[in-house]
Amino acid sequence: MAVGLGPLPTLHPVPGFELGIASAGIKRPGRKDVVVMRCAEGSTVAGVFTLNAFCAAPVILAKRRVQGAVRYLLTNTGNANAGTGEPGLLAAARTCARLAELAGVDEGAVLPFSTGVIGEPLPVEKIEAALPAALADLKVDNWAVAAEGIMTTDTLPKGASRQFVHDGVTVTVTGISKGAGMIRPNMATMLGYIATDAKVAQPLLQDLLRDATNKSFNRITIDGDTSTNDCCMLVATGQVALPEIRAAEGELFAKLKQALFEVSMELAQAIVRDGEGATKFVTVQVNGGATHQECLDVGYAVAHSPLIKTALFASDPNWGRILAAVGRAGVPQLDVSLIDVFLGDVCIARQGGRAPTYTEEQGAAVMAKAEIGIRIELGRGDCSETIWTTDLSHEYVKINAEYRT
Amino acid sequence: MAVGLGPLPTLHPVPGFELGIASAGIKRPGRKDVVVMRCAEGSTVAGVFTLNAFCAAPVILAKRRVQGAVRYLLTNTGNANAGTGEPGLLAAARTCARLAELAGVDEGAVLPFSTGVIGEPLPVEKIEAALPAALADLKVDNWAVAAEGIMTTDTLPKGASRQFVHDGVTVTVTGISKGAGMIRPNMATMLGYIATDAKVAQPLLQDLLRDATNKSFNRITIDGDTSTNDCCMLVATGQVALPEIRAAEGELFAKLKQALFEVSMELAQAIVRDGEGATKFVTVQVNGGATHQECLDVGYAVAHSPLIKTALFASDPNWGRILAAVGRAGVPQLDVSLIDVFLGDVCIARQGGRAPTYTEEQGAAVMAKAEIGIRIELGRGDCSETIWTTDLSHEYVKINAEYRT
Repeated sequence: MAVGLGPLPTLHPVPGFELGIASAGIKRPGRKDVVVMRCAEGSTVAGVFTLNAFCAAPVILAKRRVQGAVRYLLTNTGNANAGTGEPGLLAAARTCARLAELAGVDEGAVLPFSTGVIGEPLPVEKIEAALPAALADLKVDNWAVAAEGIMTTDTLPKGASRQFVHDGVTVTVTGISKGAGMIRPNMATMLGYIATDAKVAQPLLQDLLRDATNKSFNRITIDGDTSTNDCCMLVATGQVALPEIRAAEGELFAKLKQALFEVSMELAQAIVRDGEGATKFVTVQVNGGATHQECLDVGYAVAHSPLIKTALFASDPNWGRILAAVGRAGVPQLDVSLIDVFLGDVCIARQGGRAPTYTEEQGAAVMAKAEIGIRIELGRGDCSETIWTTDLSHEYVKINAEYRT
Repeated sequence: MAVGLGPLPTLHPVPGFELGIASAGIKRPGRKDVVVMRCAEGSTVAGVFTLNAFCAAPVILAKRRVQGAVRYLLTNTGNANAGTGEPGLLAAARTCARLAELAGVDEGAVLPFSTGVIGEPLPVEKIEAALPAALADLKVDNWAVAAEGIMTTDTLPKGASRQFVHDGVTVTVTGISKGAGMIRPNMATMLGYIATDAKVAQPLLQDLLRDATNKSFNRITIDGDTSTNDCCMLVATGQVALPEIRAAEGELFAKLKQALFEVSMELAQAIVRDGEGATKFVTVQVNGGATHQECLDVGYAVAHSPLIKTALFASDPNWGRILAAVGRAGVPQLDVSLIDVFLGDVCIARQGGRAPTYTEEQGAAVMAKAEIGIRIELGRGDCSETIWTTDLSHEYVKINAEYRT
C-alpha cells in the first residue's frame, strides 16, 4: 500500500563501505535478517539515537562505542533486544565479540543494531551462526540487498543516493532506511545507515548528521510512538582523493551537506510513504508561528489526530477536525481569527472560520489525491515547520492487531 | 459495542429541574435532537468549558452567560455550530432569543449547547420551529428521554443518579452525558448536565464542579482529540428544605460532594465504555510519580498509543509497547530500572525488564477480558493519577471514515 514509493533508485557504491547479508532464521527461516557493514580503516562515524528512556540494549552499546574507531555495524531484524535488561546487554555484546573475533578487530569496533519484537531474548546462537556467511558476502555494491535485509513490517526497501563532483572528483552519499510503524523518531529514525566516501572530521560529521536528521527523520510521524531502537548512522570512509573537511565552511562542505540532506529527506519520506496501512502521503506545513516549537506542536496535533487521519483515509474534507486539532495544540493565547487553513491550494478556513469561497467539491478534489498538503497559517510570527505523515486505515489496525500472530 | 454499559439506571427526578425533548430534523427527520432544560427560579448554575482555542459559538455564549441568572439550557445535536465565526454566534443568540421570548424570560437567561458536525451553518429555523414542542414537553421525570436526545455517535444513553438523606431530608444528584469520539476533555466532557435540588452558593458550586470534572471527565480519553464543544453544567435548584451550602465544610457538603463525584465518575466512564468502536474498557493507573503531571504524561502516552490500543483490541499482551510508551512520555531523568508494570494483577515488567515470573499465558488471560487494568509503578515519588480509555478497533476507523456519509 506504499504511497508513491517505487522500486529502489540506483544506489551508488561508496568506496570503503561494504555490506554483507545473511539468513539467521530469527523470525522466519530463510529470511535475510542479518546485515554486516564494514567501514574502511580511518573512517569517521556519527550516530543519532532514540531519546526513549527504555532504549534497547544495542542502542546503549552503540552510543557508547560510536566515539571510538568503528569498523563494523552489525544489524539483525526480528528481535529488538529491548526491555531485556542486563541479559540483553550481554547478548548484544556477545554477538559483537563473535564478529570482532571472526574479523580480527577489537570488540569495541563493532556496533550492534536490532529491530523487531520488544521484550524477547535475543537469539544469540542463531545470529553468531550467520556471521561467517555475512562476512563472506561483503561487497560495495550490496546496498539494495542490505535495504531488504533490514526490513520488518516495511513493504518495500528504502534507499537514496546522490553524487556530486568537486575539483573533478566524484563524491557519493548513499543511504538505506527501514521503518513503517512505531514511527515518531526523536533524534533518529527506526534504522538508517548513510555512507559517504568524503573525508570528514568526526565532530563535524556528528553536527552534519544531527542537522540532517532534525529536518528529515525527526519531522516524520506515523503513529506518534517513538521506538526504543531508533538509530541513524553516518559513515565517512575518506576514500575520496579530496582534503578532509574539518569545518562547516567552503564549497565542498556545502555540496556534501546538500547531498546528505537530500538523501536523509528521501529516506525519511520513504518511511512515511511505506507507513503501516498508509494510503495517503500527507505534508503538514505550519507557517507564521511565533516559535518553531509552537509550529511543531500544531503540526503534530494535526499529524497525530486519529480523527483527521481517518478522514484522510476516507478522502473526506472534514476540515472542522483540522481546526479542532489546531485549537487544542496548546499554543498560548492563540487568536483563531488570524488563522487560515489550506488543503492543497484550496483555502478552507479564513480568519478562523469557513472560507467564504470554499466549496465541498474543492476540498473533495484535493482529498481524492494520494499526496495531500495541509497548510496552516498562524499569523503570529515568522517561524515555519513541516512534518510528514500518513492516514489511518483499516489496514493499520489489522497490521498492528496481528503483529505477533 | 459498548463495554459493560447496560440500560440506564433509575434517574431520580430533581425537584426544580425539568426537561423537554423535541425533533427539529437537523440531521435526520424524526430524530430527537433538541433538548430544553428549565431551572427553577433562584437556581445556581456552574459550568466548565473546553479549552480548545477554536471553541464553538454556543460555548462562547454559554461561558459569558453562566455568571448571570440562568433559567434555560438549550441543546441541539447534529450540528456543532463550531468554526462558524460571527454568523455562528448570531445564530446561537437567535435560537436563545426565540426560546426566551416563548418562555417569557430574559434572553441572557438562556444558555446554548450544540454538538455534531463542525463547520456547517446552524439550521436556526428548524431549531426555532421545534421549541414550542420542547417547552410543552417539560417535566421532571424526563431524564431518560433527554439522555437519548443529546446522543450523536453514542450507541447508548448515559445517566447516573445518587440520593442521600440529611437531617431526614432526601437530596438528589442526577446527571446525563453524551460523547463517544473526539474525546479528551479539557475542563469538561463533550456534553454533561448534572442537577441537584441542594441549595449551593454559586462560587462553591463552581469549585465543586471543577473538582469533580478534574477527577472524572478530565481523566478520560478515547482518541486524544479535545472537542470544540465540551461543556459540563451543574445546576443546584435549591428546592430541598435544607440550608444553603456556602462553604466547603460540614456533613451536608461532604455528602453532596461524594454524590456529585460518584455521578460524574459514572457519567465519564460511561462515555469511555461507549467509545467509538470500543471493545475494551481500560484503566491506566500510574503510581509513584514525583509529580501529578508526570503521572498524567505517562498515563496519556499509554492511553493514546495506537500501538497499545491495537494490541488491546487484539487481546495481545504486547507489553513491550507499554514500556516503549512509558519511555517516550518525556519524564525527565527517568530511571527505567525502578519501573514495574502490571497487567491486571500480573507483573509483566520488573525493574525495567521482563518480570522473571511472567508468562505469556498470564498476560493473555488478562487481555482476554473486556475490562483491563494497566498499572505502572514509577518508583520516583508519591503521586498517582488514573485515566480511562478504550482500544482502537476496525470499527473505530469505520465510524470515523464514514462519519459524514
